[in-house]
Amino acid sequence: MTIAETIAPLAVALGDPAGIGPEVTAKAWTAREIAGLHPFFAVGDARSIEAVWKGPVARITDPSHAAHVFPTALPVIQVEDAGPICPGVPNQEGARCALASLEMAVGLARSDSVSALVTGPVSKICLYEIGFTHPGQTEFVAERCGISSANAVMMLAGPSLRVVPMTTHLPLAVVKDRLSIDLLVSKGRATAKGLTRNFGIEKPRLAFAGFNPHAGESGALGREEIEIIAPAIALLRAEGIDAFGPIASDAMFHPRARATYDAAMCCYHDQALIPLKTLHFDDGVNITLGLPIVRTSPDHGTAFDIAGKDKAEPGAMIAALRMAASAAHWRTLCQ
Amino acid sequence: MTIAETIAPLAVALGDPAGIGPEVTAKAWTAREIAGLHPFFAVGDARSIEAVWKGPVARITDPSHAAHVFPTALPVIQVEDAGPICPGVPNQEGARCALASLEMAVGLARSDSVSALVTGPVSKICLYEIGFTHPGQTEFVAERCGISSANAVMMLAGPSLRVVPMTTHLPLAVVKDRLSIDLLVSKGRATAKGLTRNFGIEKPRLAFAGFNPHAGESGALGREEIEIIAPAIALLRAEGIDAFGPIASDAMFHPRARATYDAAMCCYHDQALIPLKTLHFDDGVNITLGLPIVRTSPDHGTAFDIAGKDKAEPGAMIAALRMAASAAHWRTLCQ
Repeated sequence: MTIAETIAPLAVALGDPAGIGPEVTAKAWTAREIAGLHPFFAVGDARSIEAVWKGPVARITDPSHAAHVFPTALPVIQVEDAGPICPGVPNQEGARCALASLEMAVGLARSDSVSALVTGPVSKICLYEIGFTHPGQTEFVAERCGISSANAVMMLAGPSLRVVPMTTHLPLAVVKDRLSIDLLVSKGRATAKGLTRNFGIEKPRLAFAGFNPHAGESGALGREEIEIIAPAIALLRAEGIDAFGPIASDAMFHPRARATYDAAMCCYHDQALIPLKTLHFDDGVNITLGLPIVRTSPDHGTAFDIAGKDKAEPGAMIAALRMAASAAHWRTLCQ
Repeated sequence: MTIAETIAPLAVALGDPAGIGPEVTAKAWTAREIAGLHPFFAVGDARSIEAVWKGPVARITDPSHAAHVFPTALPVIQVEDAGPICPGVPNQEGARCALASLEMAVGLARSDSVSALVTGPVSKICLYEIGFTHPGQTEFVAERCGISSANAVMMLAGPSLRVVPMTTHLPLAVVKDRLSIDLLVSKGRATAKGLTRNFGIEKPRLAFAGFNPHAGESGALGREEIEIIAPAIALLRAEGIDAFGPIASDAMFHPRARATYDAAMCCYHDQALIPLKTLHFDDGVNITLGLPIVRTSPDHGTAFDIAGKDKAEPGAMIAALRMAASAAHWRTLCQ
């Protein structure tokens, strides 16, 4: 049996209707055969697709109809009307539509009506304006799944590198105080489990990056490696997890180094995102580990500046769809 | 006229005789024709080369003999005897030899007997043991040139990226306090001048990286961009230097972004070295800007663990030799 025969379709929450989410979703559908994509359908306002794309759109009401429609049209489950559609010009009605799409798509994934959730880009600023209180979509999805956001691990993945930023949107000067043995152990544990469940890696290898230059040079350039990172690695190893390091972070992202691990565990946002985006700016995928459902997302924003201009590249959305289908497949095998 | 006809030979200080410096220098000589290398000679203990390489070595006493000898043998100016040669096992006599080689090679460059200085890798620990008080070779060379080490700018360069770390070997938590408008302006000024003198770039473009994730997101994730980086850029622009940013550091190292600047000005060691070594781990060159002489160095260490095993790759040494010759050439044209 192929993947298509064993797992349900994927749901793509379109994100902000004025962003590039609708366009890259439609372009991914166009590439469905050449990219070997598993059937998916969009959740959002179908008009936001029609405003930027001339291809066939088919409104459906039941996820089970998606696979049948998929070969000939992009299936869409309509949520509330997003008001006037104007690509590149976000507004509050659009933000409400994005949130409703996300809510519905999460519900479908939770009820196993779809095998995975792919989320398009939203504008956090617009969401905050309509009362959204989560830092981002990841935390919202985690809450709807009954998971504390601390246990939802963001991994960024491209064809040749997976990274986990163990802290994210913090001033760099604050990171030092947020790193703790507990944090690293819980991220390491969730990452190891997530690599097995979503990527089929039996015994994941986790390479921990140092915090300081040269991984602190035995304490001469900082003590976070000695006081936090090394003890966390020791605890993970005691649990049977193949964690190692700390490694000088400038020496761990060239091709030979990347071949030695399955995920790089990074201390701060840019330590993870610089190498990932240096290598995979156009095809990086954000996957949330630690959830009962599969959730991926293209690693780019709403790009309002190019929305509606037919300039958006669907590479990252295609990669997110493929990774979602693959993760759903691995989960089926593990059950 | 070719470069070979217009400029003097290059001097390679061999670095620690027990490291891979002698081996990569000899292997670079072997590749001299295919790599199109300008004539060079080694400065150090010729026996450290003969211990790891079977090719022809010719002891010379005057740099002006190098070009004549170069086509048939690797020319070497002998400094003091390094004592027993044992690749992979450093000792104090070796460190003294490395220092004497560096001292002589700097002198030759200062007196225009050679057109550029290329320095092989040394062991800082061994140098400290014999009373060396400079943080590294760069500061030593700067002092011998009468330049304050604050004005000697380290740039790391590969075929597709040049980076300047504006702070280097500091604990990451300390960097915040070392960044200042003055520091960034002086590094920016020296980098712009150095790109013109050494690379022939008439109007260099300097991209300044943000310090915090997303370059601080207008202050929400840190204020270093607002208080330090942006004002420094404004001052540089007022001097006519094409500086711009701050840019989110994870968005500035993919190919399209790299095409927009000649050097990335980075706030801390790993912000500069992660992308450089991700892309150019095997052919990165360290070039010191702001000196009256040209000085380059392969961007790797002594690698004592593989010394004498015929495993060392000369790619970075070849790149350092080529960049040195090219920089010497540009300086000739600018005079």
